[in-house]
Amino acid sequence: MQKFFDPSSVALIGVPRNTGSGTFNNAEVMLRYGYEGKVFPVNPNTTEICGLKTYASMADVPETVDLAVISVGRERVIPILDQCISAGARRMIIITQGFADADRKGKELQEEIIARAKANGVRILGPNTMGVLNNFRKFTTSFIEVIRPETFSPVSLIAQTGVIQVASQNMAYRDWGKAIDIGNGCDIDVVDSLTYLADDPETKIIVIYMEGIKRGSDFLKLASRVTLNKPVIAFKSGRSQAGAKAALSHTGSLVGEDHVFDAVCKRAGLIRARSSAELKDAIRALVQMGEMEGPRLGVVTASGAVGIMTADACEDYGLELARLPDGLADKLLTGLPDWISVSMPIDIWPIGMIGGNYTGAYGTALTELLRSRDVDGVLGVLPVPDSPLHRNLSMVECIKDARNNSGNMKPLALWPYLDVSSFIDKFESVPGVACFDTVEQAVKGLAFCYRYHQAKMRKTPVQKQFPVDLDKVRPLAEKGRKEKLLVGDDALMLLDLFGIPVVKSGIARSRKELEQIASSMTYPLVLKLTGAAFLHKTEWGGVVTGIRSVEDLHRAFDRVLHSASARQPDAKVEAVQIQEQLHGHELLLGLKRDPKFGHVIACGLGGIYTEVFKDVSRAIVPIDREEADGMLASLKIAPILKGLRGEAGIDRTGLVEILERLSFLAGTLPDISELDINPVIATSSKCIAVDARILW
Amino acid sequence: MQKFFDPSSVALIGVPRNTGSGTFNNAEVMLRYGYEGKVFPVNPNTTEICGLKTYASMADVPETVDLAVISVGRERVIPILDQCISAGARRMIIITQGFADADRKGKELQEEIIARAKANGVRILGPNTMGVLNNFRKFTTSFIEVIRPETFSPVSLIAQTGVIQVASQNMAYRDWGKAIDIGNGCDIDVVDSLTYLADDPETKIIVIYMEGIKRGSDFLKLASRVTLNKPVIAFKSGRSQAGAKAALSHTGSLVGEDHVFDAVCKRAGLIRARSSAELKDAIRALVQMGEMEGPRLGVVTASGAVGIMTADACEDYGLELARLPDGLADKLLTGLPDWISVSMPIDIWPIGMIGGNYTGAYGTALTELLRSRDVDGVLGVLPVPDSPLHRNLSMVECIKDARNNSGNMKPLALWPYLDVSSFIDKFESVPGVACFDTVEQAVKGLAFCYRYHQAKMRKTPVQKQFPVDLDKVRPLAEKGRKEKLLVGDDALMLLDLFGIPVVKSGIARSRKELEQIASSMTYPLVLKLTGAAFLHKTEWGGVVTGIRSVEDLHRAFDRVLHSASARQPDAKVEAVQIQEQLHGHELLLGLKRDPKFGHVIACGLGGIYTEVFKDVSRAIVPIDREEADGMLASLKIAPILKGLRGEAGIDRTGLVEILERLSFLAGTLPDISELDINPVIATSSKCIAVDARILW
Repeated sequence: MQKFFDPSSVALIGVPRNTGSGTFNNAEVMLRYGYEGKVFPVNPNTTEICGLKTYASMADVPETVDLAVISVGRERVIPILDQCISAGARRMIIITQGFADADRKGKELQEEIIARAKANGVRILGPNTMGVLNNFRKFTTSFIEVIRPETFSPVSLIAQTGVIQVASQNMAYRDWGKAIDIGNGCDIDVVDSLTYLADDPETKIIVIYMEGIKRGSDFLKLASRVTLNKPVIAFKSGRSQAGAKAALSHTGSLVGEDHVFDAVCKRAGLIRARSSAELKDAIRALVQMGEMEGPRLGVVTASGAVGIMTADACEDYGLELARLPDGLADKLLTGLPDWISVSMPIDIWPIGMIGGNYTGAYGTALTELLRSRDVDGVLGVLPVPDSPLHRNLSMVECIKDARNNSGNMKPLALWPYLDVSSFIDKFESVPGVACFDTVEQAVKGLAFCYRYHQAKMRKTPVQKQFPVDLDKVRPLAEKGRKEKLLVGDDALMLLDLFGIPVVKSGIARSRKELEQIASSMTYPLVLKLTGAAFLHKTEWGGVVTGIRSVEDLHRAFDRVLHSASARQPDAKVEAVQIQEQLHGHELLLGLKRDPKFGHVIACGLGGIYTEVFKDVSRAIVPIDREEADGMLASLKIAPILKGLRGEAGIDRTGLVEILERLSFLAGTLPDISELDINPVIATSSKCIAVDARILW
Repeated sequence: MQKFFDPSSVALIGVPRNTGSGTFNNAEVMLRYGYEGKVFPVNPNTTEICGLKTYASMADVPETVDLAVISVGRERVIPILDQCISAGARRMIIITQGFADADRKGKELQEEIIARAKANGVRILGPNTMGVLNNFRKFTTSFIEVIRPETFSPVSLIAQTGVIQVASQNMAYRDWGKAIDIGNGCDIDVVDSLTYLADDPETKIIVIYMEGIKRGSDFLKLASRVTLNKPVIAFKSGRSQAGAKAALSHTGSLVGEDHVFDAVCKRAGLIRARSSAELKDAIRALVQMGEMEGPRLGVVTASGAVGIMTADACEDYGLELARLPDGLADKLLTGLPDWISVSMPIDIWPIGMIGGNYTGAYGTALTELLRSRDVDGVLGVLPVPDSPLHRNLSMVECIKDARNNSGNMKPLALWPYLDVSSFIDKFESVPGVACFDTVEQAVKGLAFCYRYHQAKMRKTPVQKQFPVDLDKVRPLAEKGRKEKLLVGDDALMLLDLFGIPVVKSGIARSRKELEQIASSMTYPLVLKLTGAAFLHKTEWGGVVTGIRSVEDLHRAFDRVLHSASARQPDAKVEAVQIQEQLHGHELLLGLKRDPKFGHVIACGLGGIYTEVFKDVSRAIVPIDREEADGMLASLKIAPILKGLRGEAGIDRTGLVEILERLSFLAGTLPDISELDINPVIATSSKCIAVDARILW
């Protein structure tokens, strides 16, 4: 990969003859950008482009180039690729579009490109790409002229598009250090690029923009490692389409593509940005401030109103206001009238104005907050009027001194207002200081620094092993594979084999069996339609609860038969399921195999509110006890599970263990596609699977 | 108010002798800003300030000024105020802080100021204010020098702080036209300011920043009128503290201050901004683009990836992608290879590049979208590389032509990227065009334009009158007023008098009464503790359900007695309530009287999930059928109320009528402080109040 970013020589095939306005001539752009390596334009129709000798074909290029950039019409790409390979080139960028991004023919052409890459052991970036950018080497393969920036940041971008590469002014903080546009990703993909940037000493922060991903589990593994050393920010679009696909199980419908990506970010320690503005702020925060080791924010503000906005933003973004450090109030208020008081956020305006030393008071407050053990990060809100009447405020010196006097590098975010443009660079030249456009963005920026800390500190769960009688599991799994699903007692039996408590239950094929099975159970009972034909039982009127006697039992049997035939006259009910009826909280537990990232485990609210509130936690398998507990804690119904208003909480230990066992089950039967336990009935003494459905 | 913004003469009391850096001299700032009226500095210790003759006291000022600006220490404010009044001044701005914003003494001083204003019929702005700004007259009372802007917008600001006035670069779009800082609002308040700006021809858009409000119902009435003529944007901070106060009822705890403000915005047609960044984007959108008459967005993008981000943003902000106008695909694709296709969002890049006329294709797409009846607003995403190699792209002309050729003024938002700075003003000089920093902000901006349309089009509900036997209501209301609350059968009886269906219920003071009452009811029954001592019955273990026989009834009675004494040995149970047990959806309906805005009506999910999901709609009383129906439609459980997966929906007509009757009840008994109907049991055939609690 290194030579994609830093080639000594480049051949450009398909360069237009003309240069200047409107020609999108990538040789011209490359030279203007300042590239200092050798450039060999290939064009049989001219002898010179931008003062460079041109060559009729790759065969005529006098040396083996490090990189060949192809931008000919799509029908000519493969012959040209062959020429490049023959000429000994090992790295190609195919700029041309109209491949897998277009029609069937394009997809076939792309397959041919992939085949040639594999057969010849060459690496290909694209097609449909802007290629690479490396500001450390003044190198770009862009055909749109981008003015080379005087400064750039050590932030490198991997994207499935060129727009974020060129729109660095809008979506990044300063220009990118390096950037790669994966395009259609026929060969080089996000994983290859991340592998390179992970160990690239010039890259301190990595940003990934993706719409989807191919090698999901490789990515997960790699990213999990990289994020321990460098912050990796992920920006994924296509959120709104997530979950739109039909799913056969509840869990399936509750674990959309975007939820999976959230779970991946959590497991891999990726910091997720959800919009361009968030991306920019996250980069700025991490470049300038780095890690924030806790959520406690100290605030100095020249405006009380902005203090209130700050409190709102803390709640929105998961930070909290720090307590006022001991002794600080005394330091600030000495010699001031009694009516001035101080609390967090520190409103420094009356203190500074009445005390007559605004800058001094500001500096004292900042320094003490930075020094305090009760404060993890600091926000300064300050007017910076760039007028002749306020030049003496010297807030830049104030910030610099506070940093020096603090003796540490805690994040210090600023919201300067009034005439900010001439101040931002000066403030940001102070180590660990970042300036933001609004106060809410400043708080969000600090929250990103805290999330980076959390990502670094995260633990990787280790799957607990459970004893399971695989000889008994095998035939059930075989049946599931063959029939594509297990329902009713089969599904419960499989769970039972994995040590998940299941309800007392039986399948009756006749009225006689019904009575027989019921005689060994404790009323009240539930009777349910069973069989593959009746997946959504309630829609079939196929569930009767509250059966308290044998007479009730027969009536219930009549009812489900009637309901089924009422809905579909030829519906054939071969058996019904009877279970002891349990009272407790209805929960939903499940698995869904994501095609890219493997099994996702889910748990949340079951029953009629499942679909409307979607109160579900999700994690990538495997999980351990701690993560299972964290999943429960992050539910909105968590207070109910703990016990609200005098009600007993649920058997949390039991539920956590079911989750651990379910994770183990997913590892043991990796080909399960979806699994629903709906409901798990949770009471204060036990958690029991009442119904289940497993799809292969 | 006019002369506060546009005085012919101003006296400045408390001007420092010194001028220049660090003196915060408001006479100097006023003159530098360009004010052309007469300025009379009052300072006994000098004879001249900034070339102006000074006066020893107000009595010496040779004419009666339109406005006096006081910035002396707080203890000298009242004597100076008296001098001003004696000198005939009718309008005073008190800059000084340390009044109601500080301690008790400050509050007393402020009361004295108010008393003087009333006694003398003068108007006072402040204290603790930066005063006013009027860029139409080059007038400011600020003591911090703000450089006068060359351009400003016809947007006026009312704020309870100075920061938004001076931070216009950060929080507004161009500078404010006019601005007023209410400060502590001892006399002139938001309502006075809004009254003035409503009819001010120079003000096209009004922005209000508030932390709280005093004259709530006046504000509601006034704002409701103003928003029919001008967009009014409201930005309220202090969200995070909302709802923190203890409330006695469920409804109370579910209708926090911030929810009330949301309901106020909805009723009054205010467009709410929730952060500084949103405020800025909302102003930009409304200044530049105005109204968007529907949610259907047409998009032309030079990047497919940004098209996906746009779809995400549409979902986030309540817009939808428009369908592709008929015939547009043909127009764009003529002469292009087969593999290029077009859909919404329109990815113009391959069309423009392969077709060789990028600007032409862009213009065609934009024009046709603007013209289409299926499109309410348009978003253009376009690179604007400001390099010599791309000068021919002339996107400004393209946008201008599209506007002219469209023949209409539909909103056109742009996200230009690359070297945007030199383009923004040019684009925004085209009528109806606004540029945004990111594509998500552009979509949000358009969503604000659509919200403005919805606000203008909103209907004002008219309370339906219901026949009520007031002679029977009166004694119950009297009892409630006296005891501060009505519970159990009393509360249900009051609801019954207002025509709200209530459950069959009785109060038993003995076992004999218990049996007697039960004999006229249909089992199953519910037995509940009743009485003011047992407000949260479930915490007392005071509810037994599923009573199916007389024996059950006695057991249930024993159980609640036991539970109550277990919790509190001396708890005295005087009576229990028995009701028929109903099965259906548990809903919560209620009222809460907001001290500022009057009764808020609420409805939502009842039962154990009430507090965790807080799925509640709220509206300001009165409401009518349409609004009640809208409240139900906006609940997350709306699909359940309609009937999900074969289940029957609830009796919506019945529920809507209960809401209308509850709104009528609030109007009839305006002194009710909180009212809970919890639960209302809703089935497919009826909705019935099962328990209620009314607080005065």
